[in-house]
Amino acid sequence: MKYVFGVDIGGTTVKMGFLTSEGELLEKWEIPTDRSDNGANILSDVAASIDSKITEKGIDKADVIGVGAGVPGPVDSNGIIHSAANLGWGVFNASEEFSRLTGLKAMVGNDANVAALGEMWKGGGVGYKDIVMVTLGTGVGGGIIIDGKIVNGSAGAGGEIGHIHINDDEQAACGCGGHGCLEQYASATGLSRTAKELFADWKEATVLTADDLSAKAVFDGVKAGDKLCKEIAAKFGDTLGKGLAIIAAVVNPEAFVIGGGVSKAGSILLDYITPSFEKYSFHGTRNAKMVLATLGNDAGIYGAAKLLF
Amino acid sequence: MKYVFGVDIGGTTVKMGFLTSEGELLEKWEIPTDRSDNGANILSDVAASIDSKITEKGIDKADVIGVGAGVPGPVDSNGIIHSAANLGWGVFNASEEFSRLTGLKAMVGNDANVAALGEMWKGGGVGYKDIVMVTLGTGVGGGIIIDGKIVNGSAGAGGEIGHIHINDDEQAACGCGGHGCLEQYASATGLSRTAKELFADWKEATVLTADDLSAKAVFDGVKAGDKLCKEIAAKFGDTLGKGLAIIAAVVNPEAFVIGGGVSKAGSILLDYITPSFEKYSFHGTRNAKMVLATLGNDAGIYGAAKLLF
Repeated sequence: MKYVFGVDIGGTTVKMGFLTSEGELLEKWEIPTDRSDNGANILSDVAASIDSKITEKGIDKADVIGVGAGVPGPVDSNGIIHSAANLGWGVFNASEEFSRLTGLKAMVGNDANVAALGEMWKGGGVGYKDIVMVTLGTGVGGGIIIDGKIVNGSAGAGGEIGHIHINDDEQAACGCGGHGCLEQYASATGLSRTAKELFADWKEATVLTADDLSAKAVFDGVKAGDKLCKEIAAKFGDTLGKGLAIIAAVVNPEAFVIGGGVSKAGSILLDYITPSFEKYSFHGTRNAKMVLATLGNDAGIYGAAKLLF
Repeated sequence: MKYVFGVDIGGTTVKMGFLTSEGELLEKWEIPTDRSDNGANILSDVAASIDSKITEKGIDKADVIGVGAGVPGPVDSNGIIHSAANLGWGVFNASEEFSRLTGLKAMVGNDANVAALGEMWKGGGVGYKDIVMVTLGTGVGGGIIIDGKIVNGSAGAGGEIGHIHINDDEQAACGCGGHGCLEQYASATGLSRTAKELFADWKEATVLTADDLSAKAVFDGVKAGDKLCKEIAAKFGDTLGKGLAIIAAVVNPEAFVIGGGVSKAGSILLDYITPSFEKYSFHGTRNAKMVLATLGNDAGIYGAAKLLF
């Protein structure tokens, strides 16, 4: 039996997984992310935890194929990280450093791209090799897989689909400094912003209250048949579907895999995206399936492990 | 010495090239495209022409690595053509058929994608491996190369960047049936349309006349310092730069290679695209260079040959 480690490095915790080479997740655990000293200890902490696990399991290190890691920052095809602000990291070759510390083959990728790879391997994207994963959380993250491989981008910014410019008239700034980015409308935050705007002018009955205009409240309301919630969801779905149509004209994927907090709404979310996707997409790209992600927070562990193959 | 044939199949003529494996174009010629009988004779005509050339040159067929071809229609990663209306072709495996007819290894790709590969190999994109080629002609064509390989797309529609939705308010239909596609503004046709609109309302002096509102006339006017021409070029450049910024947020290329008829304007065209690209692009993707294509109509021959390697 051969084994592999998959590691998802976040700003607060590092999620770690021990898997077979077939992708069976045998065990997972977390260690805190030590951001002191510009994150200088993070990789060595992870390496020590891997060493302990190898000892604990009594396996031969020669049976470990390697370790993969997803990190919250741009990583190019050479494994060079172009800074990861949440960790305090600057520019360096993380794959080489991680390999030196673990004595194992090591591969590093951007966390959103790595999650996409995980969903393709063991999640909602199984059976496809050209997918775009869309993570609807605080922002809109993305990961693009073509022919089974991550599109890292020349500066590690492949799949930064949250920053597709979609509205010329936006006055508010996006977190990136731009104006009118997709994530200003199609993230959980963007959905709440739309909810707030429509709620303020709403004269009819609604289950929504000013205290809770979250994505969950909106989609719970949609399921209960609330008219305002349906309007908010429609506006959200229209913008997101348009964004996906634009992406499809660039890379023509087999499937979009929709994940992140907003996707907990379930298949009803897809019902709001699909009509807009069909309206704005080029006919030759309309074959793309819309599916939900299934791995949740474990996508990064699976995808990091898959980097080794 | 090893050789390769590169073939660019168009609706009127087939451009053919005989190259060394190093990519030196030794000879090029054309044969007419026989569109009778739903284009049933096209590939056999090409095969016969290749056979004649091998005989004429007195080379050993064993020294021919193979033949590559670009065709005007979607081609997926398996070499399946999903119809080519200009040739009368339906859905079939063109690589297999072409190999059978020539007795050589054969590879087929979409013509715009193949031209992108050619520009990467021997043209404006030399030195890069992640490029987006943008062809500004009657429409806006595109070809995306990631890590040296064409992004065909799951239905052969990878790089159909002319059909990125960019304007919600468009009333006129695009050739594809959509409304507000990039090519409605950023093609030669789109540029002339903008010229017509602005010319109609123009009260000041201008070198333009209602008889000639072509892309060439506009950029000649720009070079002569004409104010109206500069306004038209600015509007054109703003839309195209925005489109390229959107593409960059998806695949983060090293370079955009700009070709097609409009690119004959030269480097002044890039001066009108770049400010808009910088305005609308995500900062992490702003590293992309803007360069002009250099191979003109030969890009397809070079790229088709490169398919073999």
